[in-house]
Amino acid sequence: MAARAGIVVTGTEVLSGIISDRNGPWLSERLREIGVDAAHIVVVGDRPEDLLAALRFLAGEGVDLIVTSGGLGPTADDLTAEIVARFQGRELELDGPLFDRIAAILRPLMTRWPDLDPKAVLRSNRKQALVPRGATVLEPVGTAPGLVVPPSPEGATGAEGPTVLVLPGPPRELQPMWRAAQETDAFRAAIAGATRFEWRIMRLFGIPESEIAESLLAAERDGLDLAPLEITTCLRRGEIEIATRYEAAAEPFYSRFAAFVRERHGDLLFSEDGSTIDAQVATLLDGPQTRTIATAESCTGGLLAARLTDRAGSSAYVRGGLVVYSNAAKVALAGVSEETLERVGAVSREVAEQLADGAIARLGSDVGVGITGVAGPGGGTPEKPVGLVWVSVALADGRRMTRRLNLPGDRADVRDRTTTVAMHMIRRVLLGQLDDPAEGGGGTPDEPAAGGAVG
Amino acid sequence: MAARAGIVVTGTEVLSGIISDRNGPWLSERLREIGVDAAHIVVVGDRPEDLLAALRFLAGEGVDLIVTSGGLGPTADDLTAEIVARFQGRELELDGPLFDRIAAILRPLMTRWPDLDPKAVLRSNRKQALVPRGATVLEPVGTAPGLVVPPSPEGATGAEGPTVLVLPGPPRELQPMWRAAQETDAFRAAIAGATRFEWRIMRLFGIPESEIAESLLAAERDGLDLAPLEITTCLRRGEIEIATRYEAAAEPFYSRFAAFVRERHGDLLFSEDGSTIDAQVATLLDGPQTRTIATAESCTGGLLAARLTDRAGSSAYVRGGLVVYSNAAKVALAGVSEETLERVGAVSREVAEQLADGAIARLGSDVGVGITGVAGPGGGTPEKPVGLVWVSVALADGRRMTRRLNLPGDRADVRDRTTTVAMHMIRRVLLGQLDDPAEGGGGTPDEPAAGGAVG
Repeated sequence: MAARAGIVVTGTEVLSGIISDRNGPWLSERLREIGVDAAHIVVVGDRPEDLLAALRFLAGEGVDLIVTSGGLGPTADDLTAEIVARFQGRELELDGPLFDRIAAILRPLMTRWPDLDPKAVLRSNRKQALVPRGATVLEPVGTAPGLVVPPSPEGATGAEGPTVLVLPGPPRELQPMWRAAQETDAFRAAIAGATRFEWRIMRLFGIPESEIAESLLAAERDGLDLAPLEITTCLRRGEIEIATRYEAAAEPFYSRFAAFVRERHGDLLFSEDGSTIDAQVATLLDGPQTRTIATAESCTGGLLAARLTDRAGSSAYVRGGLVVYSNAAKVALAGVSEETLERVGAVSREVAEQLADGAIARLGSDVGVGITGVAGPGGGTPEKPVGLVWVSVALADGRRMTRRLNLPGDRADVRDRTTTVAMHMIRRVLLGQLDDPAEGGGGTPDEPAAGGAVG
Repeated sequence: MAARAGIVVTGTEVLSGIISDRNGPWLSERLREIGVDAAHIVVVGDRPEDLLAALRFLAGEGVDLIVTSGGLGPTADDLTAEIVARFQGRELELDGPLFDRIAAILRPLMTRWPDLDPKAVLRSNRKQALVPRGATVLEPVGTAPGLVVPPSPEGATGAEGPTVLVLPGPPRELQPMWRAAQETDAFRAAIAGATRFEWRIMRLFGIPESEIAESLLAAERDGLDLAPLEITTCLRRGEIEIATRYEAAAEPFYSRFAAFVRERHGDLLFSEDGSTIDAQVATLLDGPQTRTIATAESCTGGLLAARLTDRAGSSAYVRGGLVVYSNAAKVALAGVSEETLERVGAVSREVAEQLADGAIARLGSDVGVGITGVAGPGGGTPEKPVGLVWVSVALADGRRMTRRLNLPGDRADVRDRTTTVAMHMIRRVLLGQLDDPAEGGGGTPDEPAAGGAVG
């Protein structure tokens, strides 16, 4: 039986929609991985009584664990530690050693900010070193420590109430601290009843989500027993993710299911170990013999280069890129022919291919990617509507893959989805799955809305 | 006194973090505009008892209005209308005319999918035409109608309970229906008594959040009465946002507070009208006489170009950019001198400035931005640690601003924060706030952790 948890996301700026919450969904997924079901995510402002009400509500729902994010900062409206202490009936005490460790973190900051008021810093230092008696401290990643606060007989819901895991708001601090919390006895005790689950992810690219729903039905028609598997599918940045949770004993059922998906979807299944397309492309470029890559982007304006260089160590294989937004830049920087631009226009197969070749020529790379399209909202025509994008991935020897995409969504969607399609095309080309020249460089039907079947 | 509302977002996919919710924040902002405080946003799965528990919780908090999103679809797990009807003590009745209007919407659909099971369609048609007695129907945008369901003496919280506004999940249906709801008497009645609020946002760049907390205390020490103002501060991508809400009568208090912030933080206050740095830079470039811009990026790998081209219409002033990750590319594409690279290394003031000049020269722009740094996690040295970044913003006439940054955080933080600092430097340069040549191109103390005081 899965343990149940509630998540409380604090912060007026989240509640009021000023910033969108990334922690609630992230925590919900992490909980599911360890066999804990999130019953509710409650977003509250910085009003103490609202936070207290949310804690009471979740405790009343009988959850085993409450995870809070945010409200650990230095300012007066950061009250989570204090409220949780009160809710669990535990007094706040100054943790001397913790105070010193936080001071040590703040010191370099203060030298960097000569005109910082030392009193203000001391106040926030002291505030962040106040710990509910009996709570487990999670070492600060930023300046705020996290807390695992068990229930107590003096608590609002007594000794049988939920344990509260208190985490900071910035994802960069919250995520490592979540992992640290797993190691604490207090956390383990809270979810003691939780079944251990296996958690597997398969990723497919190039088919609509409805197709996967169809596959699940087909699997059962074929007599596969999916009952022991908890399967959720979702569409993410144009890729289909099949996440499956099951108890260790159900491993054979999962193996049969995975084999079925492999069999049925073949090439479209690009990841069985949860690895992302970004990781796979990096591995292919950074392989035994490194292959270097360069980009020439128009409508994506540098997003693909940014995505390729997002990974540590990418300097080993990313030569660089050209952002050729204006036609003049396409000609001057990427060597696109003016004649071609006049004849077929900037958004065309020819220009995408010349951009890819230009990237290789100008940056001396083994692989080149050319992108040109209409991201919108303006600039669309009946022949070249918003969402029309040409992507070409070329090798130095002239072999290539070129695709025309018709992407749905707004400007940001079109730009982001284009980088995803490009990443998958790069993977295919690096795996040697190129267009058949006989086919005339790849006959290219329009790509499906999901982001495009590649190859 | 502000009316208070609760928001319930339904859907297992949202709860489990598979898809991220856009409706909660959107509704929260719309509510705030009409002077209604969102007390809580609760995300629940498709379990009826969880939805019911969320409604009870919010009603117990004494909210005047509950807005639900989702759960109005045709499938069995879409139960919102039924649960809300039960909660409000109102029976579901088939609305004949509504049934016919929905049927009219479904007809073309059925012709488009001939193999659609007519019985299934009839079922969902009927299901979506069931209306709680006494509720106000909001015409379907998709196939599902919205509902405004007032409390009743038979309801879980009696005649004094909250009104429930039931909206569909898809934002493109929810958003127009929200506007339609404003026009209904039932909705108006629910939030009668809502105070109209003013809402102002100030943005500062280059100071830590603790400094703002300090300023608020200082303001009160100076005898400013902040009591009539509801002030929240938050740190976003290295900028501080001060959001203040107040009743119209408190305008003079806000004026004094704004003047105090202006006085105390001067140049660091870059926005008093809520405009973002991206919008300000776009306005400055796209002004009466357009000024064009180009970039030459190393460690940010195209992120700045992508950020500049993120806005519709940016093709009017963005010439393009160079992503010069390798030294060879810095020389070949941006015209950085090999001698300089050997003498001072790639991460240096000189190279940043040559990159900015190279961007102008190669792309023929009025403004050039050069970025070079150590994004990490590898590549750091004692002299050039991870987080050290040089940014130079130059004009075609050779005037420029160059800064050295020491940025905290991981690779993604360093890269993102660098683009924010660069945007602020671009703004300064476009406003003519350049380095004093006498100063030797701008004496540059290390930049503070928050992202750097610029200028």
